[in-house]
Amino acid sequence: MTVELISVGTEILLGNIVNTNAAFLAERIAALGLSCYHQSAVGDNEERLEDAIRLALSRSDLVILSGGLGPTKDDLTKEVTAKVFGKKLVEDAHTKERIQAYFERIHSSKITSNNWKQALIPEGATVVENHNGTAPGLILDGENGKTAILLPGPPNEIKPMFERDIAPFLNRLQPEGIYSKMVKVCSIGESRAETMVADLMDAQTNPTLAPYAKTGEVHFRVTAAAEDEETADALMEPMVKELYERFGDKIYTTEEEVTLEEAIVELLKEKSMTVTTAESCTGGLLAGRIMNAAGASAVYNEGYITYSNDSKEKLLGVSGDTLEKYGAVSAETAAEMARGAANAAGADAALSVTGIAGPDGGSKEKPVGLVYVGCFVKGRVRTEEFLFTGNREKNRDYAVVRALTVLREELICL
Amino acid sequence: MTVELISVGTEILLGNIVNTNAAFLAERIAALGLSCYHQSAVGDNEERLEDAIRLALSRSDLVILSGGLGPTKDDLTKEVTAKVFGKKLVEDAHTKERIQAYFERIHSSKITSNNWKQALIPEGATVVENHNGTAPGLILDGENGKTAILLPGPPNEIKPMFERDIAPFLNRLQPEGIYSKMVKVCSIGESRAETMVADLMDAQTNPTLAPYAKTGEVHFRVTAAAEDEETADALMEPMVKELYERFGDKIYTTEEEVTLEEAIVELLKEKSMTVTTAESCTGGLLAGRIMNAAGASAVYNEGYITYSNDSKEKLLGVSGDTLEKYGAVSAETAAEMARGAANAAGADAALSVTGIAGPDGGSKEKPVGLVYVGCFVKGRVRTEEFLFTGNREKNRDYAVVRALTVLREELICL
Repeated sequence: MTVELISVGTEILLGNIVNTNAAFLAERIAALGLSCYHQSAVGDNEERLEDAIRLALSRSDLVILSGGLGPTKDDLTKEVTAKVFGKKLVEDAHTKERIQAYFERIHSSKITSNNWKQALIPEGATVVENHNGTAPGLILDGENGKTAILLPGPPNEIKPMFERDIAPFLNRLQPEGIYSKMVKVCSIGESRAETMVADLMDAQTNPTLAPYAKTGEVHFRVTAAAEDEETADALMEPMVKELYERFGDKIYTTEEEVTLEEAIVELLKEKSMTVTTAESCTGGLLAGRIMNAAGASAVYNEGYITYSNDSKEKLLGVSGDTLEKYGAVSAETAAEMARGAANAAGADAALSVTGIAGPDGGSKEKPVGLVYVGCFVKGRVRTEEFLFTGNREKNRDYAVVRALTVLREELICL
Repeated sequence: MTVELISVGTEILLGNIVNTNAAFLAERIAALGLSCYHQSAVGDNEERLEDAIRLALSRSDLVILSGGLGPTKDDLTKEVTAKVFGKKLVEDAHTKERIQAYFERIHSSKITSNNWKQALIPEGATVVENHNGTAPGLILDGENGKTAILLPGPPNEIKPMFERDIAPFLNRLQPEGIYSKMVKVCSIGESRAETMVADLMDAQTNPTLAPYAKTGEVHFRVTAAAEDEETADALMEPMVKELYERFGDKIYTTEEEVTLEEAIVELLKEKSMTVTTAESCTGGLLAGRIMNAAGASAVYNEGYITYSNDSKEKLLGVSGDTLEKYGAVSAETAAEMARGAANAAGADAALSVTGIAGPDGGSKEKPVGLVYVGCFVKGRVRTEEFLFTGNREKNRDYAVVRALTVLREELICL
């Protein structure tokens, strides 16, 4: 079965927003074992939207449209799709009630007559509830065996709706369901990781294996086609086991939603440990990343941003001699920053980062991209030197991930 | 003239990467006054790529293809476009030399016979130099008056190539050149800002005015068509002046590249002031954002992440009474955090953030999304209360921008 994506919205054509929905849908569709050969974007224009839908239906079995379901006159996706499918729009009583309830809960005063437009649905369409907004999702079946799925544009609405209702629906359409597991790996480079599974990728049939490179991480999606989840799990198990044999404890999770920082916060919780941070070039981004994990308050009490040499001495107790002899960007300073931060915060573990993010401040001996990470865990300090080759933003992002990775390596050795 | 974008690459269809190039090109094309009604993405597949190019040429005057210019067999954009335009591929001596020189400079050992594929160009094509990689850009004119522009996929190659050579080329295609200025506004909501210029937008002809909503900011692009830059400037000047009359010092820059944090770092430098930060729910993101500005080290020495109540007392001197009486998430605590941070760091200004980012931790009195910002400037503290309605990530992003905005408001009053 082939699927095609149409993103609707003039804001995409004007470059006002980056189309992250297309990437999200594309990744999930691939994970469901469906083939997607075309993505397109059109504006809020009736004629061009109609052309785009007709073209998509002519070459694909299923068309997923995102956006254009809002309450304003500009929002045309439902109206135009209904026209293409030859369906009238009728009011859906359940959706109308839900919109009313939503407004009572969120901002009762702002309901306008426009909002009732969102309760209109193409006759015979399946309504998919939106738990995070007013526009319902819609599934339309055409007489020619073609299907259109209409989803709201806001990422915080489309993602939960897709996971909850659309993915299971797509699975039911296929002779066999498609199930997948995500195996997330850190502490290894992308090309090295891919080389290590080249034979598995060449030999793949069912399950299949696909690598996704993220900043400082590699995610492997294992996908199996089977009549039910249990059978799929049995098919995937040997592949996941094989990945564990090759990557060992470099695998930090096999859960789709778990991030590296969440895995680390969980590790700290398990070990009843706290962590702190002392940052120079990353200037708070490392702490900010740890605190992305909703439960971080259990393991993190305080942290330090020490940009100046003075602050490294004052807040962390880095010695003036070390700063003078080795410089602020050195393994020695990183080590003293980590130890000093743990001391000052009374934490069991500490990460420090000091480096030259760029664009200025580099020298022949210490070029832009040179970063030292210090990691204190229960009395021991480890330091690592990195040389990143990106711009300021990339160098700081990589420094954050590498620091987290070093901490994780130390924690799993305990 | 209508322009259409085709992004080439299976990694886009699989959702492996987010298509930021499309957003970049779309925004720049709109800024050049060109109309773009279609964006599409296709994989590294000869037949579908050919169909996509033919379809695009049938409905638009100019097609910009990005990606698929690499050295591997999968990279087909040049070959397929040449076929559609009926051109042979011939070796371009200058490009061959450039590739040789590039490899000598960057990684001389890795040059392979594949790389010479990148020196082949469609007969008669204009070669656009790539200063950041090996694949040249190409401009092909067809007999039917249609044009194709081929650009490399990596963002760090396509962006400078577009700015340096493609934007001027597109300008030359038009009877008049298109010039624009960006007027960036903060301290005001998007819908309010748009309402304030509704009449200007209705009346627009030359120059035109287009709003772009960013998190906590609104950017207005003023665009004029004129035979030269001087004439365009003269056309844009009254509009920019009008925007200054309406938004006053809410305009923080009229420079395309200047960010809010850079504008604030500049303000602090001008006033020879330093700043520090004390963060609870944003956990370092505010400091990290200030340090995005490459020159931040001149105004920022140290900062504090104070997640626990203990750390607020210990590092910032917030009184236990205040924490007990008003709670950690309160205007009173935010005020003491800001004053305490300025004291501890010996800084002239300080920003504090304390709030409930979610998803947990909210109550009826203090719901998720409630955030207090404290701003200390030369002895005076101002606090602001916000209620954000996004998820954890969005709430923290907005808290950071609002805090920066409050600091800027205080600084410009000095």
